[in-house]
Amino acid sequence: MKWDLLTTSKLSTTEIQEILKSASGFARGESWQPKNRLFISNLFFEPSTRTKTSFEIAERKLGLEVIPFEVQTSSVLKGETLYDTVRTLEAIGTDAVVIRHSADNYFAELEKGISIPIINGGDGRGHHPTQSLLDLMTIQQEFGSFTGLKVAIIGDILHSRVARSNADALVRLGASVIFSGPEDWVDIQGLPQGCEYMEVDDAIREADVVMLLRVQHERHDGKLLFEKNDYHNRFGLTVEREKQMKKESIILHPAPVNRGVEIADGLVECSRSRIFKQMENGVYIRMAVLKRALENRNGGREDVNANQKWQATY
Amino acid sequence: MKWDLLTTSKLSTTEIQEILKSASGFARGESWQPKNRLFISNLFFEPSTRTKTSFEIAERKLGLEVIPFEVQTSSVLKGETLYDTVRTLEAIGTDAVVIRHSADNYFAELEKGISIPIINGGDGRGHHPTQSLLDLMTIQQEFGSFTGLKVAIIGDILHSRVARSNADALVRLGASVIFSGPEDWVDIQGLPQGCEYMEVDDAIREADVVMLLRVQHERHDGKLLFEKNDYHNRFGLTVEREKQMKKESIILHPAPVNRGVEIADGLVECSRSRIFKQMENGVYIRMAVLKRALENRNGGREDVNANQKWQATY
Amino acid sequence: MKWDLLTTSKLSTTEIQEILKSASGFARGESWQPKNRLFISNLFFEPSTRTKTSFEIAERKLGLEVIPFEVQTSSVLKGETLYDTVRTLEAIGTDAVVIRHSADNYFAELEKGISIPIINGGDGRGHHPTQSLLDLMTIQQEFGSFTGLKVAIIGDILHSRVARSNADALVRLGASVIFSGPEDWVDIQGLPQGCEYMEVDDAIREADVVMLLRVQHERHDGKLLFEKNDYHNRFGLTVEREKQMKKESIILHPAPVNRGVEIADGLVECSRSRIFKQMENGVYIRMAVLKRALENRNGGREDVNANQKWQATY
Repeated sequence: MKWDLLTTSKLSTTEIQEILKSASGFARGESWQPKNRLFISNLFFEPSTRTKTSFEIAERKLGLEVIPFEVQTSSVLKGETLYDTVRTLEAIGTDAVVIRHSADNYFAELEKGISIPIINGGDGRGHHPTQSLLDLMTIQQEFGSFTGLKVAIIGDILHSRVARSNADALVRLGASVIFSGPEDWVDIQGLPQGCEYMEVDDAIREADVVMLLRVQHERHDGKLLFEKNDYHNRFGLTVEREKQMKKESIILHPAPVNRGVEIADGLVECSRSRIFKQMENGVYIRMAVLKRALENRNGGREDVNANQKWQATY
Repeated sequence: MKWDLLTTSKLSTTEIQEILKSASGFARGESWQPKNRLFISNLFFEPSTRTKTSFEIAERKLGLEVIPFEVQTSSVLKGETLYDTVRTLEAIGTDAVVIRHSADNYFAELEKGISIPIINGGDGRGHHPTQSLLDLMTIQQEFGSFTGLKVAIIGDILHSRVARSNADALVRLGASVIFSGPEDWVDIQGLPQGCEYMEVDDAIREADVVMLLRVQHERHDGKLLFEKNDYHNRFGLTVEREKQMKKESIILHPAPVNRGVEIADGLVECSRSRIFKQMENGVYIRMAVLKRALENRNGGREDVNANQKWQATY
Repeated sequence: MKWDLLTTSKLSTTEIQEILKSASGFARGESWQPKNRLFISNLFFEPSTRTKTSFEIAERKLGLEVIPFEVQTSSVLKGETLYDTVRTLEAIGTDAVVIRHSADNYFAELEKGISIPIINGGDGRGHHPTQSLLDLMTIQQEFGSFTGLKVAIIGDILHSRVARSNADALVRLGASVIFSGPEDWVDIQGLPQGCEYMEVDDAIREADVVMLLRVQHERHDGKLLFEKNDYHNRFGLTVEREKQMKKESIILHPAPVNRGVEIADGLVECSRSRIFKQMENGVYIRMAVLKRALENRNGGREDVNANQKWQATY
């Protein structure tokens, strides 16, 4: 068995709780390092500050050797497949890879043939499991448990990598989920179990957790579906709407934030905001996920290139 | 108080001397390392070999963990502000940042809100304090003191990041400064105190230190104001002019050199040239500046994300 | 004397055997680290996953500090020469450099003036000595010796960085070489000593080692000289041709592979294939070459910037 982390939907609630517990240990200052020097590489085929740097720091804190991989200077430019790129990294001694790629389910082509663990750093419009886990960690840190919590997820549900997998995990963990946002961006007829749709003002008044999604201009082929101000007034967390939030409610956003669009500029660092706390937690989640993958890998690289007839003795 | 290094003009002469002394210690082989593992990131929004690599080596020599930041793959491409980018790096555990940016005074927007030290690696046409300090170190190394020295700064004074701040620091330290170069590139009416203008031939005959500035084609919007040879003959350090220099005088250049423009090809590594010595000193200056910032930081990151209600105990 | 590695043709067979022996030691788990902290930089002016990452892992395994060098953000963009770039890296404390560059014999301009060792990671259509050495290591590992072996090199001999230097080294080590491939890509009239030309089917039947070369679209100015299928059927290792290979024969390819062009998709990881074994061996070869360069460097950097009049004492 290989301890990839590809999606949260494949994790049982027990597994999720184990990862959150391990991350919480790292947050309290616990440490873990592998016995041998291990090599890891981060393959980011899409731009990202937060996720890539967060993984880098997590890797360094675990004492891993991080092998730079730059898409711009790689053989991918010569038409090499993702499989051959990863297989190459495995052959030369990389012990695990983190991958972000614009193709949904890019990992399907890797499951056969690749023996080292794969951590999904985001696939197309599919999944972003470490983001989901850090959202869960931040909520649990705040409220202690998920039972009975109401979490409003507001914005472009259809194109979000985390909305659906967050909703799925939250419901399994005992929370209820409210979707809100432009009607074109929510499949109101096909709401998952445990989820309901509300108007933005209702959602914000009801929720213990207001999770805003980024308006991803870059995923709508450059077409602006809303004027900045228009979106903000109709679906954003305005200064006025924030005043309607329950006393203990908190604000989450996966970042990067479009200030003045999803959220008023002045609220990004207000006392309810856990936006930068999420980023901090992201490092601990990634440490937990990497530890899980590396601690459990099956014997590792020794077996990978075993197809030689005999070993030279010289 | 935060121990940024943004400009040399904010440093007192005592502070300058302290940094030079610390750098000189590193040049003699002294070492310093922080007690805990610290993380640093170099945000270079403009191209640079020398400065970035020099910082990297300085950081490694101090035992810092350098977190790669690649502009090309960062969320800056998604329109994230500089503030949010730096705030993110702070949230995920970076202990200091080095920034080079094309905007003058880019750091103004960071002074409120960012708690980690910022080292300026060059801002637009504004400042480049570690370059100034390494120039000062190389002069002091050569002559022991600044008192009574004549330093000629030749070239594009108006567009230079270091000409004015070098002149300011040199005059405060007791030297006198001669500006020279094309009249369009020197504000002859507005010379700072302690500075005078001379024709190139006179400047070179008078000076103890001949500091050539780079002709920065890339900052003149691609317009070539001079033919290469024309500039060299009229304002460059030609083979003939070098013969007019005083016996003990030395040559400085911030590099990269346009060979055959600011300086004759054959003089780049002549016995008077301290051009590569400057680069060596740059590493020691950066070690001193980083040590100063990290040694003195105020309690650091513990306080940054303190806006949570209670800590999960699990 | 400086222990560069620029071409294999400059290495005696004794030197080649010494490098192979050292690499074989690393393959068996031996280790070596320099006494002091050493800095190295990889200057890759052409894209490459395999070679660059392989050097990175080799460097980390030797405990070297790897200083990132990104062409895209370097002063090369400001027109700096390769000499000045390398001289700068030397001045700021880099102890060795690995260079890949599109210009044949780029190192000619570096031999005078640069004191640190240079490892050639590939020059234009010229040489790629660590690739040649890893090919030799993989063959020796398989057959114990080179004497009497027949090695078929198939494909674009004329544009290959490794075909001619491999042929030269193999013949000197006692093997015989068969060239094959499109007639336009082989200089049949000018075959080196010890080499003969054969039709593909004959070459594959005769050879102990079938070494396929990559069809380098990017080196033919984008002109496709063959349809994919056409090349595969006429010159590639098809499923049918593989069945004609001798029982113990093996397959090599420098990668990245064009699957379905030089080699049938299903054969890339077949039991005869040593393609990923080559990559693994590449790390050991690079460790051996780096050890050789660093162990023997002549006193090193102390002398490089010695042109100062006196040392400041403060």
